[in-house]
Amino acid sequence: MSFVGDPLALAAALRAGDRVALGRALTLIESTRADHRLAAEALLAACLPYSGRAKRIAITGTPGVGKSTFIDAFGMYLIREQGLRVAVLAIDPSSRLSRGSILGDKTRMAELSVNEMAFIRPSPAGESLGGVALRTRECLHVCEAAGFDIILVETVGVGQSEVAAQEMTDFFLLLLQPGAGDELQGIKRGIVELADGVAVNKADGDKANLAKQAAAAYSASIHLLQGREDNWSAKVQTCSALTGAGLPEIWSQVQRFAEQMEANGWWTKRRELQTAYWLDRLLREAVWQQFLSSPAMQEKATDIRQQVLSGQISVSEGVRLLTNS
Amino acid sequence: MSFVGDPLALAAALRAGDRVALGRALTLIESTRADHRLAAEALLAACLPYSGRAKRIAITGTPGVGKSTFIDAFGMYLIREQGLRVAVLAIDPSSRLSRGSILGDKTRMAELSVNEMAFIRPSPAGESLGGVALRTRECLHVCEAAGFDIILVETVGVGQSEVAAQEMTDFFLLLLQPGAGDELQGIKRGIVELADGVAVNKADGDKANLAKQAAAAYSASIHLLQGREDNWSAKVQTCSALTGAGLPEIWSQVQRFAEQMEANGWWTKRRELQTAYWLDRLLREAVWQQFLSSPAMQEKATDIRQQVLSGQISVSEGVRLLTNS
Repeated sequence: MSFVGDPLALAAALRAGDRVALGRALTLIESTRADHRLAAEALLAACLPYSGRAKRIAITGTPGVGKSTFIDAFGMYLIREQGLRVAVLAIDPSSRLSRGSILGDKTRMAELSVNEMAFIRPSPAGESLGGVALRTRECLHVCEAAGFDIILVETVGVGQSEVAAQEMTDFFLLLLQPGAGDELQGIKRGIVELADGVAVNKADGDKANLAKQAAAAYSASIHLLQGREDNWSAKVQTCSALTGAGLPEIWSQVQRFAEQMEANGWWTKRRELQTAYWLDRLLREAVWQQFLSSPAMQEKATDIRQQVLSGQISVSEGVRLLTNS
Repeated sequence: MSFVGDPLALAAALRAGDRVALGRALTLIESTRADHRLAAEALLAACLPYSGRAKRIAITGTPGVGKSTFIDAFGMYLIREQGLRVAVLAIDPSSRLSRGSILGDKTRMAELSVNEMAFIRPSPAGESLGGVALRTRECLHVCEAAGFDIILVETVGVGQSEVAAQEMTDFFLLLLQPGAGDELQGIKRGIVELADGVAVNKADGDKANLAKQAAAAYSASIHLLQGREDNWSAKVQTCSALTGAGLPEIWSQVQRFAEQMEANGWWTKRRELQTAYWLDRLLREAVWQQFLSSPAMQEKATDIRQQVLSGQISVSEGVRLLTNS
């Protein structure tokens, strides 16, 4: 990769609006090659002073809820009606196995993918969720330096990637659909608790009434989740990615949230807590990997591990023997 | 503590059936004082060769399900009808704050607490769930060395302590009650997935029919959770801690489970995987604590952390600076 040699030039180019440079920068950030890491850090360092001004919105929902169509429609609304530039990133640790499971096919977002005010980036491949998510977070900073006003972070709605998404965004939007029957449609309770807003999609045609009923029902459950530290009360709204109905109201919620959080100090505080979270999480992982690869550890690990597993020594003793180096 | 000086004598005494020695041994195991740890390890080392022969059963359920009454009745059934010695341990990381929230009051288990074939130990206090749970696991080994045939590990049914309980027991029993209305009564999906058996308690009087209906309904949901690696299919049963109905059937399930797992090799395999789990988990924590307390780290940590939190440097760079010592 020729740009590895000059990450600062790359940063300058992407800040000037060069989309090819932006794509290359994200590829560098996502690279797992050890010799790319320092260049990636330099690139990031050059971008950091220009990041932080976008609104970061996580969007999640189970497959079938119409997430791609929603992002396409919501993104186009933000571009056309609000004059904003929109970047779409994804966290999907499974994409390594099932390539293209999310965002792999840009035609999923037919309008957004060909609009020059938008930028869509598929999920990076990676070893672990922590690693993938960290890269997504760094890509987010780079997109902000490239001048995007809105960063949409998409997740698949079925696992731990939602926590990661919530830990890098300002507003967490949960998408549901009408008539799926059971309470909150198999969305894990923990994920519902992350929501700053809920939207029942597909509120169009003969499903419009069903969507309203569903919204009312969900509203009652969501109500239980109030009493947040930041004093925000998540609302359940309806929308249609097909007709565009409800999209302005969702954007209004995001804006109202931003105003309220900026006023009470939680906008900044949430971002600081997020940075602290990533520092702690990634530092723990790095320390652990460093420990595992130390020669002293590798020499005795197999032996002590075997003694613990066979019941000759206790876990406590094994831990002490392995850490008293 | 006078026994700290002679953990081997303590181990000999508890193996000979001295209940006072057993109590002291568990106190030593639970001690967080650094100068007690080596003595605790020696005690554990003396117990390990005599542990492993008991059946370990986790029992969980939300407050109100009648857990204490169930354990009292089930424990007495095992003692009276099966001639087994029963120890009851608990994992409740909240007990440090709300002392006595679980098992603090031995009168909760009126019969068991005064029976000489039984031994009840309240939850240890502790800094972290991992720490508390590790101690509970070590207490389990000591109780086995003291000759108990059955170890019941009680948890409160609302959080991470269930995973810890499942990681130290052979059979995970989930208690439910009839007529609580909503699907699986707010038990987190992840906890249901841990269950090797489910029992709908309070199947007595005018609730008997309700309990049967509930069991049938739950059975349908549980059915979805099949296809386990060990080929076990969890059953939903009904029982009454009040009348004793269903208790023999629950015990039969545990025995059938044990026979099947012993036959297909999973009894031993599950225990080995559990030991590996605790070794990994506790080793990670120890390595992290060691890292945090290193002088090099303490010297630069505050400064680098501040640079990361203020956005001067990226998380990646912060991690590298802190781990390149």
